[in-house]
Amino acid sequence: MRPAKLVPLPLRAVEVDDSYWSPRAAINRSKTLQTVYRKLEETGALQNFASASGKATGGFRGPFWSDSDVYKWLEGVSYTLALQRDPQLEAQADDVIASIASAQRADGYLDTYFQLMRPDDRWSNLAFGHEDFNAGHLLESAVAHFEATGKRTLLDIAIKNADCFERTFGPGKRDGQPGHEGLELALVKLSRATGDKRYLKLAEFYLNSRGQQPSFFRGEYDKLDPSKTMNFLGTTMNVRGLQDRLFRADPSKFNTEYSQDHLPVRQQDKVVGHAVRAMYLYSGMADVARETADGGLYAALLKLYDDMTLKRMYVTGGIGPSAHNEGFTFDYDLPNETAYQETCASIGVAMWTERMLGLTGDARYADLMELSLYNATTAGVSLAGDTFFYDNPLYSRGKAARTAWFPVPCCPTNIVRLVPSISKYAYSQSDDALWVNLYVQGKATARFGQESLAVTQRSTYPWSGEIRLQVTAAPASERGLFLRIPGWAGHADFKLNGKAVQPLVEKGYAQLRRRWSAGDVIELSLPMDVQRLQANPAVAEDRGRVALRRGPVIYCLEQADNGIDLDEIYLPASAPVEVRHNPNLLGGVSVLTAQALKKPQSSWTGTLYRPSGKPERPVPIVAVPYSTWGNRAPGKMAVWIEGSAY
Amino acid sequence: MRPAKLVPLPLRAVEVDDSYWSPRAAINRSKTLQTVYRKLEETGALQNFASASGKATGGFRGPFWSDSDVYKWLEGVSYTLALQRDPQLEAQADDVIASIASAQRADGYLDTYFQLMRPDDRWSNLAFGHEDFNAGHLLESAVAHFEATGKRTLLDIAIKNADCFERTFGPGKRDGQPGHEGLELALVKLSRATGDKRYLKLAEFYLNSRGQQPSFFRGEYDKLDPSKTMNFLGTTMNVRGLQDRLFRADPSKFNTEYSQDHLPVRQQDKVVGHAVRAMYLYSGMADVARETADGGLYAALLKLYDDMTLKRMYVTGGIGPSAHNEGFTFDYDLPNETAYQETCASIGVAMWTERMLGLTGDARYADLMELSLYNATTAGVSLAGDTFFYDNPLYSRGKAARTAWFPVPCCPTNIVRLVPSISKYAYSQSDDALWVNLYVQGKATARFGQESLAVTQRSTYPWSGEIRLQVTAAPASERGLFLRIPGWAGHADFKLNGKAVQPLVEKGYAQLRRRWSAGDVIELSLPMDVQRLQANPAVAEDRGRVALRRGPVIYCLEQADNGIDLDEIYLPASAPVEVRHNPNLLGGVSVLTAQALKKPQSSWTGTLYRPSGKPERPVPIVAVPYSTWGNRAPGKMAVWIEGSAY
Repeated sequence: MRPAKLVPLPLRAVEVDDSYWSPRAAINRSKTLQTVYRKLEETGALQNFASASGKATGGFRGPFWSDSDVYKWLEGVSYTLALQRDPQLEAQADDVIASIASAQRADGYLDTYFQLMRPDDRWSNLAFGHEDFNAGHLLESAVAHFEATGKRTLLDIAIKNADCFERTFGPGKRDGQPGHEGLELALVKLSRATGDKRYLKLAEFYLNSRGQQPSFFRGEYDKLDPSKTMNFLGTTMNVRGLQDRLFRADPSKFNTEYSQDHLPVRQQDKVVGHAVRAMYLYSGMADVARETADGGLYAALLKLYDDMTLKRMYVTGGIGPSAHNEGFTFDYDLPNETAYQETCASIGVAMWTERMLGLTGDARYADLMELSLYNATTAGVSLAGDTFFYDNPLYSRGKAARTAWFPVPCCPTNIVRLVPSISKYAYSQSDDALWVNLYVQGKATARFGQESLAVTQRSTYPWSGEIRLQVTAAPASERGLFLRIPGWAGHADFKLNGKAVQPLVEKGYAQLRRRWSAGDVIELSLPMDVQRLQANPAVAEDRGRVALRRGPVIYCLEQADNGIDLDEIYLPASAPVEVRHNPNLLGGVSVLTAQALKKPQSSWTGTLYRPSGKPERPVPIVAVPYSTWGNRAPGKMAVWIEGSAY
Repeated sequence: MRPAKLVPLPLRAVEVDDSYWSPRAAINRSKTLQTVYRKLEETGALQNFASASGKATGGFRGPFWSDSDVYKWLEGVSYTLALQRDPQLEAQADDVIASIASAQRADGYLDTYFQLMRPDDRWSNLAFGHEDFNAGHLLESAVAHFEATGKRTLLDIAIKNADCFERTFGPGKRDGQPGHEGLELALVKLSRATGDKRYLKLAEFYLNSRGQQPSFFRGEYDKLDPSKTMNFLGTTMNVRGLQDRLFRADPSKFNTEYSQDHLPVRQQDKVVGHAVRAMYLYSGMADVARETADGGLYAALLKLYDDMTLKRMYVTGGIGPSAHNEGFTFDYDLPNETAYQETCASIGVAMWTERMLGLTGDARYADLMELSLYNATTAGVSLAGDTFFYDNPLYSRGKAARTAWFPVPCCPTNIVRLVPSISKYAYSQSDDALWVNLYVQGKATARFGQESLAVTQRSTYPWSGEIRLQVTAAPASERGLFLRIPGWAGHADFKLNGKAVQPLVEKGYAQLRRRWSAGDVIELSLPMDVQRLQANPAVAEDRGRVALRRGPVIYCLEQADNGIDLDEIYLPASAPVEVRHNPNLLGGVSVLTAQALKKPQSSWTGTLYRPSGKPERPVPIVAVPYSTWGNRAPGKMAVWIEGSAY
């Protein structure tokens, strides 16, 4: 394979001033970050570091991967500081970093749970101990903090911690692999940030360790002393307890699909198990494939991607239908009401697709990245920024509501780092081109050696498909400006300085190449027709139903806007669907309206089959973006509504 | 409870000359009975009796309930002889009966499998030994033979056999219960035919034995010597083998839902397990409830009926989705392509509903009886009468085809006895009324003491809803003529001697009461609109689909009539469906025609969700009765087609 060399623009090379993302980033800064900080205080996650360093007493509190939530908060702070300087916030982060530094052991080891509760059990239970998972988030936040602030405080902790892993694990050293993946991608990130290839080698070693027969986790399990107990979220269980629950549901087997350990990674072709683990693994595989040009990893990723997107993904770009394993089940099992669709998994989709885009330069990955970001991901947080969905149903009878916190608060802390990092998804650059992946209003500058190509972007995307880019600084030589034509659009009209042009389109990107001049204007027009989506009939729950999409936005119906029970609504194919922008609704959204039909009253009580009857009357319906549901009075919500397709 | 006293008319009190049933009965007589006879010869089922009597050698052949197939053939012969005398057929039956008589042990025991193969194991394995099942069919055929011919030859064998059971099992005697139910209903039949209440008592004992904790079958299982083997359909297994497979799939449990032994019968409220077993059990429960006015049995039957008809029944009146247990699974699990819907189970539905009708006088049971008889049941045999479906899918890719025989030939021998017995379903009588349940052309005579009410019925039902009844003999006193208004019709128009009348309607029967005169004419007009049926949305496979029904007939589309792949068809709500009778097609059927739409070509390859697109063009479609499918060139078949409901 010849990996494309597409990289995100540096954090500070992008400014965001966007009608969709900027209000969310502002709320994230002013509300969510502080809400989450207080919760990390209240629940002991911050104090665990003070306790581990001996500066406080009280033992460990929270789930044993609670350190990761502090690191994710720091990563969110870092992206926020990159968007806008804030000395007070920066000082708050410095205090947390100082506390982390004090907790770190001299050898670099850092995991407050094991340090405080089970100092002798270090690395004894990689399957569920989460030491590696915590380390991954430490490394990610450290790179972000360094990039955003230039400070090495957190980066030095991360390097020391990574060195500790690197001294311990690897060929000729100790065997091992992360139970919850994430360290792999973080090691590649650290390797890129520091130029130190040892971290990349360790990531590769971890990938190559996966899927042995018998599993590494099996050997580890056999060594665990079942007379020893541990506390997990308030329950005392023996130290093999999580394996017994998640690997050994059938006691005759030791099934490690849960953590994608069932096959060597290059042989994997089905997305299985815990969805967040899967996304973090595939992200790490893409990172290593890119750095090492590993064709086997690349080929596996293509198969995994097809498997997920053709059989195991919601229309919103989210994944993982089942609460049981927080993950994948079987092909086309995509229930709406019980959709787990964990917010972290949707963020994981964005992380993986961003890497696949980098690896291939193929817009189809950006399509899914966009889908997840504008729908499944942003649904995870309220518009007010203070409550969260962990699981995201596609149908609700009115009971589902965002809450302020969770015993396992991974989703809030993942939202905190996702929202302010949109710039990393919006633009990329290759050797000689600036790639516009998402139509986010603001500014971007790509540097080619000593030269820069800078553009401003103006749009009210995703509500309008009219986008205007203006070159504000041009390099002397010919460079490309590559604009993504979204898959949902199919085509786009382009104008260059007012004249229609038809640029070459490759893998979904329109390739405009020229010697640019400051002041050059590119106008892009995307068709924003409302589409009635159907699901493959193999998805049982969506048969006879349609979902509405406009641009990248998936819509839903909420009780608040619709006079009748959503289950009484039938949308005929003949009913036109209109668009109306409402700046005062849900932070400013375009709503969809139509004249649907009220289904006949006859109920299913007392019958299994019945003649279809005549609809009673037309009813006006209003659909709002799925990402904004659940921000008003509780009520029913449905993404897929009954309707005719033709 | 006060059971209604509705009984079928005696066999010889009804003549059938019907466009739907008479050709089928004629084929059954001329073709099916002899085809089946030859197969019973070839496969050894007949010779087993000769071997058991010592007149032949060669041991036992066939499944160990193979005797029952011979009895079922004799029952079919008996109904056939009741419809039309046939000395040659009668003599053929007499020979078989003589052979059976020779095989019977002096004490009345009769089971050629145990006599030939395991003489020491008599009644050791009631769960799967089928001695009681065989006996049930012996009793049923004996009563039919006696009623049809007046001969006691088979009846005496049956009485001797029933006495053998009666001496052995019962309170203060031996514990036991049929593994495959059927003997219960047969004992009631014999009790009614002979006036001997001991058989009724034994049936009641068997019902009361069911569902003990621990199960009787568990105790029996523990006594079986697992070092002993038996042969089952060519496989050698230990004598606990079938229990291990069907009761102990989970080795920690001994689950007897398979044979409805999980709860005492009066506590059962879910239809579970093997579907034929269930129907035969409920039929026996209805028979005993009726004879003993047992309110507990009656109440359970109502719950079981609701459970089946509201959650676990196909639109064709068939039941049992799964091949695994030949039976029920979970609520609303009604897959079309893999529908097991065993022919015997559909016949069982007719048997049970006929008894519920007798118990209640409620037409809703006749509605389902009719549905099953005109659709799921008759689909089980080809129009030529020589090939059969064991399982009956509601969707086929073109591979499903009727075959001439099966290793377990229960369905052909059940068809053989069902088709000529339609008269037992068509009419009933109560103390003072003749009830017309099915609109079958012919003649019927009800006797009230010394008086008779005789009617001729003319119609081309189910193709037309115009029915004409003429009184040919009238009793001196006022009597009722009760005519069923089918549930699918909702209402009916009546004329008496040319004048519109509006009779009292109770439980779905129009009650015409008067002092009848010979020559009185009643005309009944039923609306025969084509209905688009929808399934409760909980039935995943039928969402977004419609099935076509006209009168009692469920339609399907076959590839033979339709120019395009059935999966490409979409039937909009706006498309009118026309009716056209075609006397030359499939033995003479009314077909349905409509202009449907061809769905857009875009395929599901490479996508999980897609915009719905525009239909390509109108396509004419033709639907034929489901009961006649698979009688032409192989091809796709679908009962539920994609379409809009409103």
